[in-house]
Amino acid sequence: MSKFDKPILVFQTDFTYLEGAVSSMYGVVKTVDRELEIFDGTHQIPQYDTWSASYRLHQSLQFWPKGTIYVSVVDPGVGTQRRACVAKTVDGYYVVSPDNGSLTHVKKFIGIEEVREIDESVNRLQSTRGTSVFHGRDLFGYTAARLASGIIDFEGVGPAYPVEEIVEHPILEPEVSEGCVKGIFEINDPNFGNLWTNIPLESFEQAGFCYGDIVRVRVTHAGEAVFTGKVRFCPSFGFVEKGEAMIYNNELMHISMAVSQGNFCEKYGLSYGTDWEASFFIDKNV
Amino acid sequence: MSKFDKPILVFQTDFTYLEGAVSSMYGVVKTVDRELEIFDGTHQIPQYDTWSASYRLHQSLQFWPKGTIYVSVVDPGVGTQRRACVAKTVDGYYVVSPDNGSLTHVKKFIGIEEVREIDESVNRLQSTRGTSVFHGRDLFGYTAARLASGIIDFEGVGPAYPVEEIVEHPILEPEVSEGCVKGIFEINDPNFGNLWTNIPLESFEQAGFCYGDIVRVRVTHAGEAVFTGKVRFCPSFGFVEKGEAMIYNNELMHISMAVSQGNFCEKYGLSYGTDWEASFFIDKNV
Amino acid sequence: MSKFDKPILVFQTDFTYLEGAVSSMYGVVKTVDRELEIFDGTHQIPQYDTWSASYRLHQSLQFWPKGTIYVSVVDPGVGTQRRACVAKTVDGYYVVSPDNGSLTHVKKFIGIEEVREIDESVNRLQSTRGTSVFHGRDLFGYTAARLASGIIDFEGVGPAYPVEEIVEHPILEPEVSEGCVKGIFEINDPNFGNLWTNIPLESFEQAGFCYGDIVRVRVTHAGEAVFTGKVRFCPSFGFVEKGEAMIYNNELMHISMAVSQGNFCEKYGLSYGTDWEASFFIDKNV
Repeated sequence: MSKFDKPILVFQTDFTYLEGAVSSMYGVVKTVDRELEIFDGTHQIPQYDTWSASYRLHQSLQFWPKGTIYVSVVDPGVGTQRRACVAKTVDGYYVVSPDNGSLTHVKKFIGIEEVREIDESVNRLQSTRGTSVFHGRDLFGYTAARLASGIIDFEGVGPAYPVEEIVEHPILEPEVSEGCVKGIFEINDPNFGNLWTNIPLESFEQAGFCYGDIVRVRVTHAGEAVFTGKVRFCPSFGFVEKGEAMIYNNELMHISMAVSQGNFCEKYGLSYGTDWEASFFIDKNV
Repeated sequence: MSKFDKPILVFQTDFTYLEGAVSSMYGVVKTVDRELEIFDGTHQIPQYDTWSASYRLHQSLQFWPKGTIYVSVVDPGVGTQRRACVAKTVDGYYVVSPDNGSLTHVKKFIGIEEVREIDESVNRLQSTRGTSVFHGRDLFGYTAARLASGIIDFEGVGPAYPVEEIVEHPILEPEVSEGCVKGIFEINDPNFGNLWTNIPLESFEQAGFCYGDIVRVRVTHAGEAVFTGKVRFCPSFGFVEKGEAMIYNNELMHISMAVSQGNFCEKYGLSYGTDWEASFFIDKNV
Repeated sequence: MSKFDKPILVFQTDFTYLEGAVSSMYGVVKTVDRELEIFDGTHQIPQYDTWSASYRLHQSLQFWPKGTIYVSVVDPGVGTQRRACVAKTVDGYYVVSPDNGSLTHVKKFIGIEEVREIDESVNRLQSTRGTSVFHGRDLFGYTAARLASGIIDFEGVGPAYPVEEIVEHPILEPEVSEGCVKGIFEINDPNFGNLWTNIPLESFEQAGFCYGDIVRVRVTHAGEAVFTGKVRFCPSFGFVEKGEAMIYNNELMHISMAVSQGNFCEKYGLSYGTDWEASFFIDKNV
């Protein structure tokens, strides 16, 4: 088997790169099989935030080659009874993760064909037996490496369990009608300070919105209005003046909001979650 | 063609690694050609700062093997009419970047032999058509991967345009006379808090400065004096006491200032740019 | 020689990824030998902190394949008379580092078989001669690449010197008696805010502590009590309520303290070092 027949491993965690944890985890992978290729997804998922883990997984997985093994370790329950699993998607990827909500988006928007619980009696680094706090290194990375290397096949991960038992976060659907769409900010772009809604571009267009429109926007937090304004819907940031708010279609084809060369979240004190609702209305006075 | 006949891809952006953007971008590269090698330049260029992008590109490009393809995505104008290009340097590197000032230093200090505008009708990831905000993934990374892979040659990037049309930031020259050199702080070392001038070591030595000299320094910001003092010119930081300011020859052979095991910028409230002038005088009283 | 016969290079520094330094350093490695594999250990060692460098090296090195070359560049004395060296461990790894305390843990807990001073007349990047501030790029990375590539063998690094001359930080031993163990917090987990003592799990168990025990803890800083409380000793974080302090066995089999899904250091204003003592007593009243 050539090096390039073996799947790529991509890792996302909430470990940061501040100390030696990621290095130890990757060292284990390369010790299992020197030929394996490893990439950083991100190691800056917000701590213990399985919702963000789920979102980031879905955001990036689809752009990697089929067969890629994505290892996601946001694991507040490490060492407890939560399941450790490997999920196989309907389109041929593998996700290695605690079963704690991190699989929500992949299950809903891609689909999981089969899921197996990692058998620790087989797929556990033996040299560190006795510690239960670093499954990224001792269980998830190690199992992913064995799977990628061909030491085990998918069946060798451990026993299958019903896909219906996978732990999921609730996902809200937007409300779409003529001239009006209501959704939530479901995630942010933490670097540029943009907010991404759960409203697909397609729904937005069905409701009658077009690029160039001035749109009436109302954002509420726990029911209270925190932002109202008339905002232009543009193909990209540079279509409005620096510092101006705008609506755009994000990299995953969802309606989003930003401030051109600025930070929408910080400027208006906004954030994301199920209690951050955003409503968009066609402005008849324009 | 062996894996090692294909150029390395190095990426620098202002995306950070906080979420899934870099992962998606790299996934596209590996989907184009599994064999390509990818390295992080940095993903922490200050946001929208095409000057820093230009400087960092120049700082690092020369140390990579000839033929390396450096992808630079600091792109406030993404999705607008600014050109997306691939530049070929006179010494055999390729830079893939928006043409927005990011090529300034490479053009001036290395030289660009030819530049081509990326033809989006050919070199654009098709699966994400409809979104215009992530050219790092959909255009720059994708085109760089196709070029590295040999799917396209340089001509296949798109039409050439005059090198003279490349967008440039102004670069100031230092003033050198006997016993006196005047320049600007043109960039910082954001980690250690050092400031790097535009004065080559060679000019400094021509003006008569030698290691061990106590030098009179005057820094002005917008014409107003913000730092004055007598500072030693040393080969490295450890030649003065911890906490003491010093002048040194930086990694790119330019005169720079630091505080030994301290932060020069923070300690004295200094920064960089065309309005941060630094003058150095041989102190006749020493 | 196949690509996979050449050792992996892992780098840890205090450079951060904020600018082009890491990229330049890695570029030099790939220019020496295109086939070499490079991994980030971490580039966020606290600045100038050779104790942390030593700890992180020891934390991660053992998980990489035998033969791996770990390059550690925390180098406040760059360009001065401190030695630049390559150490060979008794179990077959190489560490490339300034000899400034960064080898402390590897020497004590793994063992160094032989150490050689890097001969700058041979193993120094020639194109940057004249600058003395970036030995990560010009000396350590370059030498490591030559060694990994087989251009030089270990003897080719430079002259051997007595292992006893290696600069070491003092390492304190914990005091263990029946029902009582006293040690120090010797390092933190800077991401999750945990503190790791110098007390091995084995010593803790010898003193009579068992998982599930409520333990009396007293932490002093410079002799003054800064934390006292009854804390449960658990296999992992999820065994206590969110926000509760707990004692656990860390990833390196040492007794540690955390707040479940919280930050122990921040919550109680604690840190690490030789003056941060932690005493653990079996609580007879439970």
